[in-house]
Amino acid sequence: MPLSTSHEESPIISELRQDIITGDWVVIAKARAQKPENFKAAADNEMAPVNPEDCPFCYPEKTGQKKDTLIYYRDDGEWSLRVFPNKFPAFSRESNEVRHFEEGPYFAMEGIGYHELIITRDHDKVFGQMSVENLAELVDSFRTRYLELMNKKSVNYILIIHNHGRRAGASQPHPHCQLFAIPVISPAVSLELNGAENYFRSKRNCVFCDMIEWELKEKKRLVFENENFVVLAPYASRAAFELWVLPKKHSPYFERIGSKEEWELGEALKKALGKIYFGLNNPAVNFYLHTSPCDGKDYSHYHWHIEILPRTSIWAGFEMATGIEVSTVIPEDAAEFLRKVSTP
Amino acid sequence: MPLSTSHEESPIISELRQDIITGDWVVIAKARAQKPENFKAAADNEMAPVNPEDCPFCYPEKTGQKKDTLIYYRDDGEWSLRVFPNKFPAFSRESNEVRHFEEGPYFAMEGIGYHELIITRDHDKVFGQMSVENLAELVDSFRTRYLELMNKKSVNYILIIHNHGRRAGASQPHPHCQLFAIPVISPAVSLELNGAENYFRSKRNCVFCDMIEWELKEKKRLVFENENFVVLAPYASRAAFELWVLPKKHSPYFERIGSKEEWELGEALKKALGKIYFGLNNPAVNFYLHTSPCDGKDYSHYHWHIEILPRTSIWAGFEMATGIEVSTVIPEDAAEFLRKVSTP
Repeated sequence: MPLSTSHEESPIISELRQDIITGDWVVIAKARAQKPENFKAAADNEMAPVNPEDCPFCYPEKTGQKKDTLIYYRDDGEWSLRVFPNKFPAFSRESNEVRHFEEGPYFAMEGIGYHELIITRDHDKVFGQMSVENLAELVDSFRTRYLELMNKKSVNYILIIHNHGRRAGASQPHPHCQLFAIPVISPAVSLELNGAENYFRSKRNCVFCDMIEWELKEKKRLVFENENFVVLAPYASRAAFELWVLPKKHSPYFERIGSKEEWELGEALKKALGKIYFGLNNPAVNFYLHTSPCDGKDYSHYHWHIEILPRTSIWAGFEMATGIEVSTVIPEDAAEFLRKVSTP
Repeated sequence: MPLSTSHEESPIISELRQDIITGDWVVIAKARAQKPENFKAAADNEMAPVNPEDCPFCYPEKTGQKKDTLIYYRDDGEWSLRVFPNKFPAFSRESNEVRHFEEGPYFAMEGIGYHELIITRDHDKVFGQMSVENLAELVDSFRTRYLELMNKKSVNYILIIHNHGRRAGASQPHPHCQLFAIPVISPAVSLELNGAENYFRSKRNCVFCDMIEWELKEKKRLVFENENFVVLAPYASRAAFELWVLPKKHSPYFERIGSKEEWELGEALKKALGKIYFGLNNPAVNFYLHTSPCDGKDYSHYHWHIEILPRTSIWAGFEMATGIEVSTVIPEDAAEFLRKVSTP
């Protein structure tokens, strides 16, 4: 509904949509908008195949992996999911005391923390092809490791991510997630925390809850829902076919989910990732969990969720310079397209 | 100089460096650090070649381009640089009145503005191979278009960017820049503006000036300098081989540079881009101008500069989730390597 319509004759080239949480902008390039179907052929995950026999995730012990931090078993006694430290960690857990460095006007600290790999069993199937049971187990491993690490002295934030495909930064095709437990709260999370708090101060409500209520009523960006979770294309999507998975009920802390919610979150993830996999021909994709920090402070206005970003386009100079993304797929079109994709 | 040295026996896996301007963090993965030389073979710009005869930038009139907004000529009467509207703009200049849209809790506005292409003549040479004269002319075209567009009603920010190579989002191999004149100030620029203002409030000095003073004294991240400009690898580099080009004297507004500075900035750009081109075997690269907004407000604490980002790695889930980049090249090593690269 345009508020100012004096130039309705001229076509709209693009729309600047504001992210309701962070206040950031995205550009929806309407004149250059592409049909969702067109992404199908262009996208592929660009990974060189690895034989299961040579896969470091099929046989972690071959690469020197000894004691897992967490392991799940199938009914036949074989492992179904393993968690162990990354052999090439970005963060070290060697020290209890964080070294600080100063140089002139600059400040740095040692990268203390935990960096773990979460490996599912099947070498070839992507998460979107696995069973709800597999994905509920994956969610359970997130929660279990989260609860174990959240009280460590140097850990203030726990991040769980998934990279699939070369364009998404994956180095192995075998499905896996990574967990980072780190001392700092990241800029992207801070923006959301501050945005949620500011929104609460002015509207006395959770910004995520208001968004979910609107989307469940409007339905045009809704992709899937079950009793406790919703999958939607965000109004200010930063990438074509971006999807968010959110709990319907207000919940700041991911680690407090119960086993029924784990199952339902597994189902929602399967649907969201499956629709992207089957509908867009297996594009590279990232997903990550955004939940409250575990630094002991109160984040009751925040609402945890999972953000799924298909990497169908490259960030160019405009995006790098501004932090404003240009998307050529209209979120409502993306949602309509993905709603229709059936997943086995 | 470590402040806390109780665990000096354990190796440092990584360092979290804080960006002095924005307060953001980067991860320098020291244990996984690569020698700068190793990037040489891996990097290439991955563009399919285009014949000059088929190039829309060699012959813009073939694609329907009529009146240039700016044109420069060589001594032989041939054009040397042209500026004209992008045929596929992300922003439209059709309307004087910006349409706004509301939908439930959301807000959007029409993407009004200007989107122009800045084309240099030589089809094959990258900017780092061109003459200082060519690059001074490029800088002059930036300034001239900036001055023309900065007072337009709907324009609050002017962004000038360069994409080179597929990984940097370029769609044409012919060297070119793009200018965006837009109604909103981007999140990335706002972060720098706020950071500079906060620093000034607490230290009574410009954060960029303090940084430049330190770098000129220390010299270990310095890559090139002439009378008025400095090229350096930022302490908290977000990408391997990131370089910034900054005026040594405090100056918030790019558009106020004189012709001597244009020449010197051309030289600094040639050196910075040439060292990346010759030293790293022509990687994909972005650069962009960060200067004060042109919305009529006072930005006297800001300091304009150009940021150059070689796209030698892919942002994976960690970077997308956090806004924290993981770099595997230590900025001091990158600077030392690039200092030694000679440019013809």
